[in-house]
Amino acid sequence: MGEKILLAHGSGGRLSHDLIDKILTPPLSNPILSHMDDSAVFELHGRVAFTTDSYVVNPIFFPGGDIGRLAVCGTVNDLSMSGARPLYISLALIIEEGLEIEELRRVVESVRDTAEEAGVIVVTGDTKVVDRGKADRLFINTSGIGLIEGKSDISGCNARPGDKIILSGGIGEHGMAVMSKREGLQFNLPVTSDCAPLNHLVAGMLAASRRIHSLRDPTRGGLASTLNEFARQSGVGITIEEAEIPVHDGVRGACELLGLDPLYIANEGKLVAVVHPGDADTVLDAMRKNKYGGQSAIIGEVTTEHKGRVVMKTRIGSSRIVDMPAGEILPRIC
Amino acid sequence: MGEKILLAHGSGGRLSHDLIDKILTPPLSNPILSHMDDSAVFELHGRVAFTTDSYVVNPIFFPGGDIGRLAVCGTVNDLSMSGARPLYISLALIIEEGLEIEELRRVVESVRDTAEEAGVIVVTGDTKVVDRGKADRLFINTSGIGLIEGKSDISGCNARPGDKIILSGGIGEHGMAVMSKREGLQFNLPVTSDCAPLNHLVAGMLAASRRIHSLRDPTRGGLASTLNEFARQSGVGITIEEAEIPVHDGVRGACELLGLDPLYIANEGKLVAVVHPGDADTVLDAMRKNKYGGQSAIIGEVTTEHKGRVVMKTRIGSSRIVDMPAGEILPRIC
Repeated sequence: MGEKILLAHGSGGRLSHDLIDKILTPPLSNPILSHMDDSAVFELHGRVAFTTDSYVVNPIFFPGGDIGRLAVCGTVNDLSMSGARPLYISLALIIEEGLEIEELRRVVESVRDTAEEAGVIVVTGDTKVVDRGKADRLFINTSGIGLIEGKSDISGCNARPGDKIILSGGIGEHGMAVMSKREGLQFNLPVTSDCAPLNHLVAGMLAASRRIHSLRDPTRGGLASTLNEFARQSGVGITIEEAEIPVHDGVRGACELLGLDPLYIANEGKLVAVVHPGDADTVLDAMRKNKYGGQSAIIGEVTTEHKGRVVMKTRIGSSRIVDMPAGEILPRIC
Repeated sequence: MGEKILLAHGSGGRLSHDLIDKILTPPLSNPILSHMDDSAVFELHGRVAFTTDSYVVNPIFFPGGDIGRLAVCGTVNDLSMSGARPLYISLALIIEEGLEIEELRRVVESVRDTAEEAGVIVVTGDTKVVDRGKADRLFINTSGIGLIEGKSDISGCNARPGDKIILSGGIGEHGMAVMSKREGLQFNLPVTSDCAPLNHLVAGMLAASRRIHSLRDPTRGGLASTLNEFARQSGVGITIEEAEIPVHDGVRGACELLGLDPLYIANEGKLVAVVHPGDADTVLDAMRKNKYGGQSAIIGEVTTEHKGRVVMKTRIGSSRIVDMPAGEILPRIC
């Protein structure tokens, strides 16, 4: 049994400073962070994207990732989906008293590795400790700042009839990986989270086309939620083809076993793009060149019909409405 | 008994959208937030300050404030202490299943009122719900972005021998107000939190002097921690006069009763400034004109002696070292 986090690690006193100086700052060290003032300071000129997300995933380590990698990817991806190049992130920890310091160290190292992969730096942070039973091991908030270069105007409001819907790969992997770990389920084909930073993928797409209208990562609520959001925000209909949507066999099997629909299961390394039909193939080619976009596919299109709704043509040739999920599918997956 | 938060409010589905559309967004509405994309987008040109803080205060409502006001003030103040003009903040909620929606509404309205007072806008947000017993009613993270105008270079590293230490008012009020509420203590003189946005106070100070070297708000760990941080970061000694430090009678009485030292108790509406001696009186005058600086006082100075340490001359004429607090004084006060 290793050393554990105490309430005093969150007090603002000597133990807090020790935790910051010995565990939290060394892996993340950079000239802005190491200033250790109340705010990070840097120059920025242009159109800025700013986003925030808290991560409460249970368990904090899961096949394919951990809460640290998730927290960096989630915020990097939100910035990327606005067409921004992610630059700076913050890291705020809420730790439950009793967490092993060694586990915290692993999470911070994962934050470091993922930030390096994405090319962002952690410039400011915060640590709070709450008494045992008042949190669940570790919650993380990351906020992020990026720069939007050029004249890109990407928004969920910009989908237009005729646009193609492109999905960057198989769906449902993150949600099923977390759930299988949490519930101790074993499937024939193990499922690994797709948790990944998508900023380089998006950079390739933006270099290939100036007619990408909407981008979003289908996290909570899955692909179904994201498509419904696009349909509502843009006041259009969306039609998708079930046969074109990639689903890993392990995810398909697990979902069938549990009566879940992969359309509603969270992803953390996938994106949906709404693209002008004239550029769809070019964007698809660019996506397939990136390691996180190899399975990209055109899965449907935007239409003037059934406004505000998503309709799926099934494998057997019928059509069904894909509704916004009403409630909780899988809690605590991000 | 009113309506309560369910796990499904954090699912990304229809209940999530309802909560955001009906409770969270209306009070905070502004053109950037209402875009509802993955990131907020705005123009920014210059030297930017960026900060983050999570708030886990218990209870979430206390004399003089609540977790919403606290979350806005804390981040506004961190930006202000870097000499930045706060502009934009994010609001990320981690809600324990079962929280009354009416309480959430009150917190969001408090966020709105405090943001209005400070002149900042909430541009992006996030909501997570965790199962009952896995959080403590409500945790909030706010991150903030501000602009540093002019050539101000304010840092905890910049304290120089001869500089005067100015404190903006009485200490210990926030910590004692939260603790008295949490523990159900009644004192003869009730203590109210000083929780307040200090950006207008700082703007007045910066207009009055270009020789403010360091600024910090003495939150967790109190005045003692902040002064010790300055002494270490700048490699100087600091001497303060006990008789010059304002302490509200209610705080003094409560601290005596409980064996606590107000030097170590958190403040949420106070600042410490390290100022060139030639400008100290000018800065003091500017501070006293602001409603949150009426009791400002010069409490000591920076010295070449006892480097890295804070020494207090007591009322009875002796000297004692004011050390960094080792552990937890009062947990969960911010």
